[in-house]
Amino acid sequence: MSSTSEGGSRPIAIIGGTGPAGMGLALRWARAGEAIIIGSRDEQRAQSTAAAIKVKAGNLANVSGMENSAACEAADILMLTVPFEGQAGLLKQLKSAMEPGIILIDATVPLAASVGGRASRPLGVWQGSAAQQAAELVPKGVSVVAAFHNLSADLLSGDDPLDCDVVVCSDDPDAAQLTRELAAKIPGVRAVDGGKLENARIVEQITALLIGLNIRHKGHAGIRITGLPATAYR
Amino acid sequence: MSSTSEGGSRPIAIIGGTGPAGMGLALRWARAGEAIIIGSRDEQRAQSTAAAIKVKAGNLANVSGMENSAACEAADILMLTVPFEGQAGLLKQLKSAMEPGIILIDATVPLAASVGGRASRPLGVWQGSAAQQAAELVPKGVSVVAAFHNLSADLLSGDDPLDCDVVVCSDDPDAAQLTRELAAKIPGVRAVDGGKLENARIVEQITALLIGLNIRHKGHAGIRITGLPATAYR
Repeated sequence: MSSTSEGGSRPIAIIGGTGPAGMGLALRWARAGEAIIIGSRDEQRAQSTAAAIKVKAGNLANVSGMENSAACEAADILMLTVPFEGQAGLLKQLKSAMEPGIILIDATVPLAASVGGRASRPLGVWQGSAAQQAAELVPKGVSVVAAFHNLSADLLSGDDPLDCDVVVCSDDPDAAQLTRELAAKIPGVRAVDGGKLENARIVEQITALLIGLNIRHKGHAGIRITGLPATAYR
Repeated sequence: MSSTSEGGSRPIAIIGGTGPAGMGLALRWARAGEAIIIGSRDEQRAQSTAAAIKVKAGNLANVSGMENSAACEAADILMLTVPFEGQAGLLKQLKSAMEPGIILIDATVPLAASVGGRASRPLGVWQGSAAQQAAELVPKGVSVVAAFHNLSADLLSGDDPLDCDVVVCSDDPDAAQLTRELAAKIPGVRAVDGGKLENARIVEQITALLIGLNIRHKGHAGIRITGLPATAYR
């Protein structure tokens, strides 16, 4: 099913991929040999972003750009990197383009910035987390995974290895494992099994804490999970 | 005001200090030369716990045991390490023993285990966090600091350095700094300024995530905050 298991045969569509987080993930995965489709409302913008990523990732990188729905239809793995205020609307719009069996990896963080407040404060989401909201909005048979909330977009867009773990939460163990494999393709990143999707509510909030630390200390904060056996990271 | 600034002149009272987290903190601070009073509802239990800590910390360690109210009155720094279900009642009971100017460091984590649920799931607290609940219950002039939620009691009770950062949240910058100094006295621990007390709601929840990781992976999970300048840790 996955591009990862089958060696890059099927692309990863990065929906909302023209923002800093989407571009950063695209760059790192393109460098790791994954085929990437940048998705955007605007096809031309998607294509110019894809071209910019190719320049950074190298000529052999497989990066293209499409309108979001087309990107969705061309991929088995969707990576959603949009601001919280855009998440629900976009998922409703893409519903008919999502086929059963695909995986939606959601990195949405519900920050008060979405409603004019601070990026260092989380919003409460009725379902518990942005990822659980996503799970309510996708068609049946689409697996939702929460991951990649806590990676600095600035650092992803650079050349150095990151110093951050990715906590992966999902109710679908296979989708979670595939996501952990994708995480581990980013240099310096370790993936940790964070359990069920409901735990995304904690992982999402950590981002707000890290943003506060960045504001206070002028850094690019990330987290490492310590004290677990080596088998916990993969 | 503090034992830390004045070189161990005034003790730290560890309220609810006979549990694993309280004993672990007491051991580490006693080894660092701090004077420690173990507080308990039961004076005799406090004294036998203090004696047990002295055996581990060495004969020069300054550790005594008192009933909670007496411990409170004898100290300028109170460290609260009780289960969430005991926090509010204990603070109400100790109110008259707390003098303005003292610092209450709260490590309470509101876990569903307090009401018969899972330790890997946080409870919602109306005030936002257990620490903010504490702030509502202490007398005027008592500064509340949230810290030490994410340290493994098992590892604290051992001899090896820890591999965990302590995120310190408070609305009183001096109390926060003092708490960061105390955190840094534990080998392997770095203290990070986590901003206002309201951010405790995120830090407390991280503990639930770590407990879930421990259950899943059989470890003693902690967190490190990466990506900040060296000046952010102290």
